[in-house]
Amino acid sequence: MSGLKDKAAIVGIGETEYSRDAGVSVLSLTLQAAVRAVEDSGLSIKDIDGLIPGFTGPQVDDFISNLGLRDLRYATAIQMGGASATASLQSAAMAVSSGIANAVLCYIGWKGSSEARFSRRSASAGGGAATMSVIGNFELPYGSFVPAQFYAHMARRHMHEYGTTSRQFGAVAVAMRKHAILNPKAIMKKPMTIEDHQNSRMIADPFRLFDCCQETDGAAAVVVTTAARARDLKHHPVNIMGVAEGHPDSPNYIAGRPVLTELGLKKAAPRAFAMAGITPNDIDVAEVYDCFTYIVIAQLEDIGFCNKGEGGPFVESGRIELAGELPVNTHGGLLSQAHVGGMNHIVEAVRQLRGDGGLAQVRDAKIALVTGYGDFGDGSIAILGGE
Amino acid sequence: MSGLKDKAAIVGIGETEYSRDAGVSVLSLTLQAAVRAVEDSGLSIKDIDGLIPGFTGPQVDDFISNLGLRDLRYATAIQMGGASATASLQSAAMAVSSGIANAVLCYIGWKGSSEARFSRRSASAGGGAATMSVIGNFELPYGSFVPAQFYAHMARRHMHEYGTTSRQFGAVAVAMRKHAILNPKAIMKKPMTIEDHQNSRMIADPFRLFDCCQETDGAAAVVVTTAARARDLKHHPVNIMGVAEGHPDSPNYIAGRPVLTELGLKKAAPRAFAMAGITPNDIDVAEVYDCFTYIVIAQLEDIGFCNKGEGGPFVESGRIELAGELPVNTHGGLLSQAHVGGMNHIVEAVRQLRGDGGLAQVRDAKIALVTGYGDFGDGSIAILGGE
Repeated sequence: MSGLKDKAAIVGIGETEYSRDAGVSVLSLTLQAAVRAVEDSGLSIKDIDGLIPGFTGPQVDDFISNLGLRDLRYATAIQMGGASATASLQSAAMAVSSGIANAVLCYIGWKGSSEARFSRRSASAGGGAATMSVIGNFELPYGSFVPAQFYAHMARRHMHEYGTTSRQFGAVAVAMRKHAILNPKAIMKKPMTIEDHQNSRMIADPFRLFDCCQETDGAAAVVVTTAARARDLKHHPVNIMGVAEGHPDSPNYIAGRPVLTELGLKKAAPRAFAMAGITPNDIDVAEVYDCFTYIVIAQLEDIGFCNKGEGGPFVESGRIELAGELPVNTHGGLLSQAHVGGMNHIVEAVRQLRGDGGLAQVRDAKIALVTGYGDFGDGSIAILGGE
Repeated sequence: MSGLKDKAAIVGIGETEYSRDAGVSVLSLTLQAAVRAVEDSGLSIKDIDGLIPGFTGPQVDDFISNLGLRDLRYATAIQMGGASATASLQSAAMAVSSGIANAVLCYIGWKGSSEARFSRRSASAGGGAATMSVIGNFELPYGSFVPAQFYAHMARRHMHEYGTTSRQFGAVAVAMRKHAILNPKAIMKKPMTIEDHQNSRMIADPFRLFDCCQETDGAAAVVVTTAARARDLKHHPVNIMGVAEGHPDSPNYIAGRPVLTELGLKKAAPRAFAMAGITPNDIDVAEVYDCFTYIVIAQLEDIGFCNKGEGGPFVESGRIELAGELPVNTHGGLLSQAHVGGMNHIVEAVRQLRGDGGLAQVRDAKIALVTGYGDFGDGSIAILGGE
């Protein structure tokens, strides 16, 4: 199972500004992030021969036309919602290590605020849910329309089983906000206390406003090539040491799962660590998909940073803050930086490993972990490290 | 570029009955094909840890639930329209050869007749086209709604440049029909002459009715695992000797392409042949995506069976019929067997290489070629062979 270990590397990262209303098309935003990622890598656009769009944003064909790609050899679409960005690293690593492609561009662009808003159930957002038969037939008709509602069941169950509290959810929100304040690219910069979290309005019990990630406009992209080629490029290479995806049992029927609080990540994490040949103790910084505060807690458990049920206490007392044992989401995450489907988590992990983390740099960060979560429990994980 | 050569093999094939109205759901149809493919392979359902749905049909999550998969390690969605099925062999081969997955199920299910009909522009069919910006903005508003219209430009251009005739298109239709008559699973069994083709009604000039493939209900699936594991399974292994995909320049603007008659396949074919270490002369039987008769002619050129412009004469005089130099679509193809997005082409290629081609068996078939075509020019190719 060490097949992909250190075979591929992330060599370029790119982001747009993040905002509530970008004022340009999703295609334009995403191309901007893509061009920046390619420039950052030291490769040229014509070197790109693989494309993996994220779960939302422009299609491959529009990218070919607008970037002028002339020999695309690999394109696929990972359909795992918010788990897609990190899962795309697995496919990109397979493509470059098998020689099918030389350089794969993974990208997500989204106008989640000004256009495709989940919370307003706009025609272009969240449509996927209706195609899942059980949820479509038995949950949507009762008014369960948006992610905050879908995942509230899971969070409530965790509280019931393990005594997890809303204040512990708040500790996640507060940590992300503290990190966002250090990040020039973050949107949410107003200081937040646990009391602010507790006083924020209820959205879908037990989720309050500050348990829910933002809806924003923006795009992010990364370039993956072989580890061998990465050594000759511009930056210190960031190898993909381990990568995996996992899917929950009964993914399309959250309430019918054998264990409501376990995610697909629980199956993926041991495989990624085995591939990388390390344990959770070796992780210096973790960028953990944070569509909702609770989802961070569940993932920290499923990764193995603590036992199932212990995630609430684990996130307290500043442990996941910059000065803590395990800094989580040093960019501010979806909760306080911006919602770019987790592609911004990968960008931040690379920045940390290059030592470019700015005010939020984790000292001597050598190994970073990134996760994705989406589509009713799908999980993805990548372990990244310098050589 | 020999990275994937003989690393993976197709070990199981499965199909439903093909009909105009299956009377059961797409999910039910597709599960039936999938279970048959797994049974055919000698593996069990619990061995399946990779899923690649085709461009249409049930999502991964419904497959997990209904098959009871417990450790899915790889899922992706190839979005290349009719090129997806053959392109999925590339991804499946990468996944098993890199050790990410052990056995990948590739499937397509579609109620293209009773439900999602392209020709009637139903809500669930052909929606993709509208998301492509140039076609969506500049062609759809003028009434160019369905594939027969999109590709008519290309066919007309080929006729103009090279003198290709409607009777040559007819030779393709007649060959497919002759093969369908030999196939118990084919829908269109009425004998057809060139005159029948010439007398069929015009659909989108220059395409007559018999230039257009059928719209049918059905599903097909294949199982891919490592070539090493394949040797211990039930059937004579069918190795993936070479595989590639290619995309045209300006894919979303057919009329604006530098060369209107060249497809993405022209870029993919040399890579697939180089990987396999053979030439077109070594191909014993070819299953070539045939959404329209003209598309077969263009692909035979792009593969290199003849020069560009010579495809019209090439298909005449029975050359692509069972007794000819290059039997094409021995199952009857989309034109006369059924439209399963080309997954039926892969099933037929495997059947031929196993010697299970029935009345349409090509004698001593050792190496087969399969192509996919879709989404405004995307192409895929696989070269398959016994050991």
